[in-house]
Amino acid sequence: MKVTKTGDLAMLVLNHKQFLFQLEAEKDFQTHEGFIRHNDLIGIPWGSTVASHLGKSFLLIEPSLRDALLHIRRHSQIIFPKDIGYILLRLSIGPDKTVIEAGTGSGAFTTALAWAVGSEGKVISYDKRQDMQQLAKQNLAKLGLEDRVEFHLRDIGDGFIETGVDSLFLDVPNPEDYLSQSREALTNGGTFGAILPTMNQVTKLLYAMEKHGFGMINVCETLLRFYKTIPNRMRPLDRMVAHTGYLIFARPIYDGDPSTQENNADFASP
Amino acid sequence: MKVTKTGDLAMLVLNHKQFLFQLEAEKDFQTHEGFIRHNDLIGIPWGSTVASHLGKSFLLIEPSLRDALLHIRRHSQIIFPKDIGYILLRLSIGPDKTVIEAGTGSGAFTTALAWAVGSEGKVISYDKRQDMQQLAKQNLAKLGLEDRVEFHLRDIGDGFIETGVDSLFLDVPNPEDYLSQSREALTNGGTFGAILPTMNQVTKLLYAMEKHGFGMINVCETLLRFYKTIPNRMRPLDRMVAHTGYLIFARPIYDGDPSTQENNADFASP
Amino acid sequence: MKVTKTGDLAMLVLNHKQFLFQLEAEKDFQTHEGFIRHNDLIGIPWGSTVASHLGKSFLLIEPSLRDALLHIRRHSQIIFPKDIGYILLRLSIGPDKTVIEAGTGSGAFTTALAWAVGSEGKVISYDKRQDMQQLAKQNLAKLGLEDRVEFHLRDIGDGFIETGVDSLFLDVPNPEDYLSQSREALTNGGTFGAILPTMNQVTKLLYAMEKHGFGMINVCETLLRFYKTIPNRMRPLDRMVAHTGYLIFARPIYDGDPSTQENNADFASP
Amino acid sequence: MKVTKTGDLAMLVLNHKQFLFQLEAEKDFQTHEGFIRHNDLIGIPWGSTVASHLGKSFLLIEPSLRDALLHIRRHSQIIFPKDIGYILLRLSIGPDKTVIEAGTGSGAFTTALAWAVGSEGKVISYDKRQDMQQLAKQNLAKLGLEDRVEFHLRDIGDGFIETGVDSLFLDVPNPEDYLSQSREALTNGGTFGAILPTMNQVTKLLYAMEKHGFGMINVCETLLRFYKTIPNRMRPLDRMVAHTGYLIFARPIYDGDPSTQENNADFASP
Repeated sequence: MKVTKTGDLAMLVLNHKQFLFQLEAEKDFQTHEGFIRHNDLIGIPWGSTVASHLGKSFLLIEPSLRDALLHIRRHSQIIFPKDIGYILLRLSIGPDKTVIEAGTGSGAFTTALAWAVGSEGKVISYDKRQDMQQLAKQNLAKLGLEDRVEFHLRDIGDGFIETGVDSLFLDVPNPEDYLSQSREALTNGGTFGAILPTMNQVTKLLYAMEKHGFGMINVCETLLRFYKTIPNRMRPLDRMVAHTGYLIFARPIYDGDPSTQENNADFASP
Repeated sequence: MKVTKTGDLAMLVLNHKQFLFQLEAEKDFQTHEGFIRHNDLIGIPWGSTVASHLGKSFLLIEPSLRDALLHIRRHSQIIFPKDIGYILLRLSIGPDKTVIEAGTGSGAFTTALAWAVGSEGKVISYDKRQDMQQLAKQNLAKLGLEDRVEFHLRDIGDGFIETGVDSLFLDVPNPEDYLSQSREALTNGGTFGAILPTMNQVTKLLYAMEKHGFGMINVCETLLRFYKTIPNRMRPLDRMVAHTGYLIFARPIYDGDPSTQENNADFASP
Repeated sequence: MKVTKTGDLAMLVLNHKQFLFQLEAEKDFQTHEGFIRHNDLIGIPWGSTVASHLGKSFLLIEPSLRDALLHIRRHSQIIFPKDIGYILLRLSIGPDKTVIEAGTGSGAFTTALAWAVGSEGKVISYDKRQDMQQLAKQNLAKLGLEDRVEFHLRDIGDGFIETGVDSLFLDVPNPEDYLSQSREALTNGGTFGAILPTMNQVTKLLYAMEKHGFGMINVCETLLRFYKTIPNRMRPLDRMVAHTGYLIFARPIYDGDPSTQENNADFASP
Repeated sequence: MKVTKTGDLAMLVLNHKQFLFQLEAEKDFQTHEGFIRHNDLIGIPWGSTVASHLGKSFLLIEPSLRDALLHIRRHSQIIFPKDIGYILLRLSIGPDKTVIEAGTGSGAFTTALAWAVGSEGKVISYDKRQDMQQLAKQNLAKLGLEDRVEFHLRDIGDGFIETGVDSLFLDVPNPEDYLSQSREALTNGGTFGAILPTMNQVTKLLYAMEKHGFGMINVCETLLRFYKTIPNRMRPLDRMVAHTGYLIFARPIYDGDPSTQENNADFASP
């Protein structure tokens, strides 16, 4: 039976409220539903129920990656789990891989990358803003993932330092300006991705990709629709997130052969 | 520069056609666009362009996980990449995790699990049909992932053999019949998931989950919409996959506290 | 040039706010952006801009049917324009038609029906609650449509009074209980429709329809996604309405031939 | 009981197949499921079942507007029912209205307009191609709607002949080139609409609308998702139409006040 310990990222759940924090000896957890001493949360089985001094029963649970991502401290728009799951798959980011991302932002996607590549993999994160990278480091530290990420405070217009990386993802407003830099960093057969909020930006990127010899280009968007969980009243929630961003995936091609655009007509391949 | 070698899973791309196969010395790759000797594909950089004897230029590329999943040999409906990416995230399946799945099916999801848990993780896959597990093994072997998966030819109605696993996923028509077995196999704070094609099945599962003390229940569906990649004609493809399955996620609760249903009203959390 | 007159339903627009009301001599229009005398709004061209006493410029506009529907006074959930447009088309409700609806509710759909059938058509609206029909009458009167609607304060379990009507629409929680009554009211070749919020209700209705010899059964849902209108930042709004109701359409069959289920597989026919 | 007569547009339904045609004395209806003499279909109640000489039972039904639209003879892309229903509502097109459309195309939308405005309303349809207008006339004649439509064989760049019309709809690739002409034709407080397949076209139109003093601009898309109708297997169809066109709605403003952009943020108003 897995037991909590100091330093763990923990989640307390009460009705529809979730609280995410790190367990530290001698600290108190405070809400308007009463307080709980961290000491009472440390050394007990995950999944336990713990009462606050007001008698409210909180469930103590190990947060999932999604829980952690949704509770991340953020100073900027983050990439959301619905997109992250699909991006990881499309970019083939898994154990032992080396991946570059730019920019770092608040570190939500950095966290997901660091989590997915495992202790033998490596994430390299570029940003021009030191404050953002500082925030990202704090967010990574909460999950104990800071050692898997190398930060560069650098304008990617000056190029990436690494070469031969497996994957590269651009979350910047003007990815079309960094395509030759991206190709130089990527290994042949590597995977390239980007996320952009507007169609105008996607248009610009597509024009640039054609010129820079990217192939197997794919543009898509993911939608996530939640349902009520009352079994005799099955229906979707009233509202949903209608847009986060357009996702663009591609492969750098060795010698610029034009015969390689991905079959976008294959609508049967979700 | 990464170079191909015997045994690698390779993909050749010509226009909108993709061919996935393992590189084997002395073998030939044959299409109506000509043939290429495997020997000419081995030992060259990924991303190279190789001509068939008819002069057609094929791009030689390392398949992504999604490429591999979409080309998997299947005797049954598989779970598709759009769902797999989100399921992995929701179940927190990453390096070093231990996860149970039932049934094995054709092994597409098994492949994704084995890929995600890394060489130190472990996948345990249950099915009653030996032929399906045989097929899944072949599919795993193509990606060199067979060592990460342990197969049990067993009716899960008789219970899972393991306990304390991190995650458990049911892809069976009647998951409501295996909830107590699932709770016994899962660690506290573990993650549970299922996929079901119809609302009637979801209804049955939700009724059963209430009785078996599952909490933080969440029902959703993912949709993936592709766009044409012609920059001056930006628009979605004409058609899309409208349905694969409903996804259900939950957590086994230590002592059955009812105060833990996940906030489904949080439509702002994609 | 069309000019406003006393009694007209008018809309004043200021930035993102819309105000819908009837023009009456000697009355004042009041907002926190200043007031305007109705007398200054009467006898001027539609589309004029009129200043409040605080100098704010309001646009005076003739409300569309959708504008009127969205501003209707309501004591209950109404059917929304995205569904109404499609329902009218599916039920073939146009000039000179006779249509029954039950229940009346707040009269939003009643208003749309009355508007669509024209001065020679007829709407017959059933409800058990007098207060709802009173509200619906007030809402109809604002658009001058009250003469086109006949109200029955009656339990439809006791049957509809009319026979041979072109179309019949049920917006009640248990339409499965009124199918024989509906068939008796409808003409052969008539059109039947219903709206239901949950899948459980749809399931019950479908079982009942089979038994009552309805054919060409069709179940669908409509989704409406709005975009920002900033031309150099084209993208969907962040959120959307994810669910209003499931729509069910069918035809009563003359002699119960089973060979008439509509081709739901025809996904190419939006 | 409504009875069929010569000249009526009729629909025969057998399983998942539908046949739409005009009833004419002495004619034969032929399929591979046998033939039926029109004389046997004339003068009988709508909703009757009629056997072919091979003993197959066909259901004889009065086509709905949607049935008619989906079976229209077409030489060009038509606007589909899912969009037509919403466009009619947004443009407030109902009995007694006068509406302009350009181009005529195959006449599907023309048919819907003629049907909706009733015998006292009027549709004016512009196109440069005589063959298309000829086809549209034939399609209208089948429904007996040809008298409600006036055709102009004319380049709308030269302006519309009418003024003071209630509504105007552009289904042309470059609506941005006809905005001043559209404003001259529309009454104040009139309704303007357009449909465009690509985001690039929408962008161009939005830029032009700003310059031409259009207000209350709204861009959206409609999606229609069908479900299987098997009550114990409730789920969406596997595939759906993912895109037909983007819809743009606006109002010409009397004096160009800029304070009138519609509240697109109102995502709660479907």
